[in-house]
Amino acid sequence: MADSLSLRFFSDNTATVCPEILRALAEANTGLAVAYGDDPWTRRLDGAFGEFFGTEVRAFPVATGTAANALALATLTPPYGAVFAHHEAHIACDECAAPGFFTGGAQLVLLDGEQAKLSPATLSRALAEHPVSVHTVQPAAVSVSQATELGGAYRPAELTALCQVAHAHGLKVHMDGARFANALAFLGCHPGDVTWRAGIDVLSFGATKNGALAAEAVVFFDRGLVRDFELRRKRAGHLLSKSRYISVQLLAYLETGLWRRNAEHANRLARRLGEAAGTRLLHPVEANEVFVRLGEPGKEVLRSAGFEFYDWGAPAAGLARLVVSWDQSGQEVEALCASLGELPGP
Amino acid sequence: MADSLSLRFFSDNTATVCPEILRALAEANTGLAVAYGDDPWTRRLDGAFGEFFGTEVRAFPVATGTAANALALATLTPPYGAVFAHHEAHIACDECAAPGFFTGGAQLVLLDGEQAKLSPATLSRALAEHPVSVHTVQPAAVSVSQATELGGAYRPAELTALCQVAHAHGLKVHMDGARFANALAFLGCHPGDVTWRAGIDVLSFGATKNGALAAEAVVFFDRGLVRDFELRRKRAGHLLSKSRYISVQLLAYLETGLWRRNAEHANRLARRLGEAAGTRLLHPVEANEVFVRLGEPGKEVLRSAGFEFYDWGAPAAGLARLVVSWDQSGQEVEALCASLGELPGP
Amino acid sequence: MADSLSLRFFSDNTATVCPEILRALAEANTGLAVAYGDDPWTRRLDGAFGEFFGTEVRAFPVATGTAANALALATLTPPYGAVFAHHEAHIACDECAAPGFFTGGAQLVLLDGEQAKLSPATLSRALAEHPVSVHTVQPAAVSVSQATELGGAYRPAELTALCQVAHAHGLKVHMDGARFANALAFLGCHPGDVTWRAGIDVLSFGATKNGALAAEAVVFFDRGLVRDFELRRKRAGHLLSKSRYISVQLLAYLETGLWRRNAEHANRLARRLGEAAGTRLLHPVEANEVFVRLGEPGKEVLRSAGFEFYDWGAPAAGLARLVVSWDQSGQEVEALCASLGELPGP
Amino acid sequence: MADSLSLRFFSDNTATVCPEILRALAEANTGLAVAYGDDPWTRRLDGAFGEFFGTEVRAFPVATGTAANALALATLTPPYGAVFAHHEAHIACDECAAPGFFTGGAQLVLLDGEQAKLSPATLSRALAEHPVSVHTVQPAAVSVSQATELGGAYRPAELTALCQVAHAHGLKVHMDGARFANALAFLGCHPGDVTWRAGIDVLSFGATKNGALAAEAVVFFDRGLVRDFELRRKRAGHLLSKSRYISVQLLAYLETGLWRRNAEHANRLARRLGEAAGTRLLHPVEANEVFVRLGEPGKEVLRSAGFEFYDWGAPAAGLARLVVSWDQSGQEVEALCASLGELPGP
Repeated sequence: MADSLSLRFFSDNTATVCPEILRALAEANTGLAVAYGDDPWTRRLDGAFGEFFGTEVRAFPVATGTAANALALATLTPPYGAVFAHHEAHIACDECAAPGFFTGGAQLVLLDGEQAKLSPATLSRALAEHPVSVHTVQPAAVSVSQATELGGAYRPAELTALCQVAHAHGLKVHMDGARFANALAFLGCHPGDVTWRAGIDVLSFGATKNGALAAEAVVFFDRGLVRDFELRRKRAGHLLSKSRYISVQLLAYLETGLWRRNAEHANRLARRLGEAAGTRLLHPVEANEVFVRLGEPGKEVLRSAGFEFYDWGAPAAGLARLVVSWDQSGQEVEALCASLGELPGP
Repeated sequence: MADSLSLRFFSDNTATVCPEILRALAEANTGLAVAYGDDPWTRRLDGAFGEFFGTEVRAFPVATGTAANALALATLTPPYGAVFAHHEAHIACDECAAPGFFTGGAQLVLLDGEQAKLSPATLSRALAEHPVSVHTVQPAAVSVSQATELGGAYRPAELTALCQVAHAHGLKVHMDGARFANALAFLGCHPGDVTWRAGIDVLSFGATKNGALAAEAVVFFDRGLVRDFELRRKRAGHLLSKSRYISVQLLAYLETGLWRRNAEHANRLARRLGEAAGTRLLHPVEANEVFVRLGEPGKEVLRSAGFEFYDWGAPAAGLARLVVSWDQSGQEVEALCASLGELPGP
Repeated sequence: MADSLSLRFFSDNTATVCPEILRALAEANTGLAVAYGDDPWTRRLDGAFGEFFGTEVRAFPVATGTAANALALATLTPPYGAVFAHHEAHIACDECAAPGFFTGGAQLVLLDGEQAKLSPATLSRALAEHPVSVHTVQPAAVSVSQATELGGAYRPAELTALCQVAHAHGLKVHMDGARFANALAFLGCHPGDVTWRAGIDVLSFGATKNGALAAEAVVFFDRGLVRDFELRRKRAGHLLSKSRYISVQLLAYLETGLWRRNAEHANRLARRLGEAAGTRLLHPVEANEVFVRLGEPGKEVLRSAGFEFYDWGAPAAGLARLVVSWDQSGQEVEALCASLGELPGP
Repeated sequence: MADSLSLRFFSDNTATVCPEILRALAEANTGLAVAYGDDPWTRRLDGAFGEFFGTEVRAFPVATGTAANALALATLTPPYGAVFAHHEAHIACDECAAPGFFTGGAQLVLLDGEQAKLSPATLSRALAEHPVSVHTVQPAAVSVSQATELGGAYRPAELTALCQVAHAHGLKVHMDGARFANALAFLGCHPGDVTWRAGIDVLSFGATKNGALAAEAVVFFDRGLVRDFELRRKRAGHLLSKSRYISVQLLAYLETGLWRRNAEHANRLARRLGEAAGTRLLHPVEANEVFVRLGEPGKEVLRSAGFEFYDWGAPAAGLARLVVSWDQSGQEVEALCASLGELPGP
């Protein structure tokens, strides 16, 4: 059977780097280049992202998604601010208090919602119930994830309605796009439709999970905020000296269509897993993550067969998350599909 | 009818200062005294609080409850820590992100519970469901309010069971005692029974709401933490130069039984309101706060009659909070009781 | 001879509270008043300070000078900002990193200057030598002390010239006025002449050292900043619930001329000490602080006679600071003058 | 003549990535690997650094030197702490208040010293003159740079004496080793001799400037501190998901002697520049940086000839910094040497 490495469905950040990305790194590796972002590759980012999104933007490379999210939020939120997000959000669960650190103490207000999405109604109600006085945290921003932490993709109309509520209350909207490409590949819409046209002010645009080495961009559709951002990035140690080597990854990712090829591949295999999971499937598969009810014995069976994945939800709830990476083969996924099919009924 | 001031049931911090407290201020007002806490009054605090609680403590005066709470939490919690508290807690709702500020970004994890109490079962479940890895905020402290934000008083056994869960997981326990005297007067137990004997590590001991001018104490039962606290207090601007004038308030409050007289008076009148409210009462009256369902029309009637109070809960939910202060008269409260009795049925 | 208390020349914060202040507290102690600053006394502060300064201002009470300074600076300075101050400044030496805490990490840039004053030339040079790029802290504010930490008083023209340099570089100017009354009493000018007319944007106006119990005001001449300030004050625990009791101290202090009477008294006695010190005097006496070279043996002689004061400067440098409080008598000061006169020549 | 790129003497972070490093990246690019540092390459770091330094260590990869420095300092220093450093230190001048951000507000105390070195005597005096009370920042750490910001290398005995002073006062010692390899190549001593054997507690070990793409390590000789560090790193967004790609750079750098080859090359060419500068040389050349007095006209001449470099020191002081990178050729440096030789006398 396949070697153990290829049966890893832990996360897409266990994957390798795309050959195209490595090649781009090598091609940029010539000549001295001014450091800290004043190199030709980094200078091209605004244009490349502008082209991609169909509007003028400012785009800044950073090395991690946590940095992208926390820096973006700190730019939107005063230290006495409130950030509304889903209780499953990565910023709430997986970033070790980074939002509190970068904002200087702002508070997260965590909300419910299907498949880890925030709905306009939920946000409206939360805002209505959140008193605003000098004693309370001041509503400042909303953060949504695209794709969501439960593998869902917001439709353009959903985001538009949500951003309208936010903006009507004076809040800015941040999107955590660690798996933005996967959502976009699923939706098939224009990148602008789920960002600036819908009202997103700042986007954490991820590439690392989808084939880059370490490359995320903070993309500002609201360009008035960038000076503050640049200083926050520097003092957080997230301005890389040899910036060209992040920027060139992003250029290759955007300009060669790599984002789409990799995302479509992973999404397609994830859908295969979803089909194989049948009634065990917990959420529609709209990106490259698959949430399934296996039962604790079912998990044991799969793990004995060499498959690796994370438990999900409460301890002993029998749930699991399966993530397909850009570099996994159809053969590997078919092996898991077969094993899923052989599990005794849920 | 009574003048408008005396019909205020907004909050006990609208009250005046007790004559005993003013007299104590005047008596301390003689001679030069070393500043910043090295005066004879402040030096007596440890002893006076130790006597009160029946154990050795370290006690530090500060001027506000928010300062007491946030400084205490910052001493217990690293900047990447999690503080578990009820979603109605003052630290979560009414302190404008002070915990995040003082801790350097720690995250609140907000839980449900009857009458704003945390139960051992709820805390256990929350801890079990809170994954702990380098990606997550690290459970560090629990904060409870005594009396609670919904006017309840934890019984000694409830606190003991809760602290056992907390300590078993390595968490410290903080008590927000802004209305500690009211809870204690209701319970009739020894002060140690609802603090150190139950497992409380640090207490915000409030006196301001119950007759002082501005005087709270942070009382450490776990005395190993105080050096860090003292430096945090100073850098937060909460070490008063003329400390004697806070300390002497606390001494008068503790040593003359003032805490009990004032609390018993307010509690008794609050119970009267609770009886008058009848089926409108939302929670048992165990301190000096009374939560009632009046309906929006009912509120209107009372306000037209000159009574002042805060809405409670969701907008237009028809709920209200009535707080009795130490200096309100039975006559004033009886006026409100009468008006409550005349409201059309709920 | 006089009892030991009256021979304390440690600091003016060892003093008692003025009878006028205590009386004002008692007079405000009637009726319920809305908490957190929405009481009649606090609402009068803007007007009273506006009258005092001869211009429209916003004034906010806090309980300590460290709070006033750090909150004011946090309102002026982003977390990546630089605050220029004298290396003897209270914010640099005596506030346990409060500016760093409240600003979220801004850096102090410490400068030299006669009698702890910043000169326009020194500031100009410091700004010229301070590179500004994304790598450096961003010059944001200047902080001056009036009176200075070495007992000097800036003249109106000195402040005007300094503020011009600051404003020309886009910096705001903060004044630490812990001993503002002493400087003003010495200068004999209009309060506006050393504040807003000279270009000061925000003032920490101290009353505690000059006879109040605990009362400082943050006075904004630049009124655009106050919303941010109000939220920062609350989350720092510096919004007092029973605000009336701070505000009424400030009203009594301003409106009855108390500030001047107390300051003139202390200044006059300090000048007497300065004269008695003769050639031992290190700086002109322009407030209520007197810096003298006593030699270590000279200090020993005075301390044996019961006089208490702080060493100043480097260990064993033989320097001392003598501070006269508002409530010290001429007799006490004459005793020290006599002892100074009897010391063997320096 | 050479193309303009090759005449860049701005900084060693304008350089390319070593072929050996790129090759190592490619070799690590196979198979799925657990993310966030639990991969085989990262797991080997402790051993590889332990071997290099001749003692047990814990080593953590990060992407930037600012992150390494600020995280290390935050682990050593409480938010009310003081960090003693040279006034030319990178942490003071070039990191946009990162130390204040990561520590939560600690204060830098900046000292003088030849060639940007701290001497034991200077540190002793600064500690003696720094009062310690609840009002002051608490001395917590010393930070030194190896090589220094003025191109000097601390000798083992210098560091040993300095660390003795620090440790005797309870301070920890951090070393900013952004150019550690250059200093080590110059000194020719064992890596342990200028780190743990001398008393260094934590080292920011730089590789980026000397041929890596983006790779620094925080090396703990005092291993008791690492849990706090790991959580601080995560919440700062400096734990990379695909950690293997930083770790493998560090492994290649350490284990193939790359650090030495690159450093020796750059140092040798820098010494050539130093010789050519003759009496214009400001400091001995002990690493790859050369500080020269060119006069403003001299700079103009060199820049007209295509050489690029940064001004140094005060505006119009006529000083310049020339940095040689690992990938610059002898030919390029000789061109600069020739031009230096042709300048009219200083």
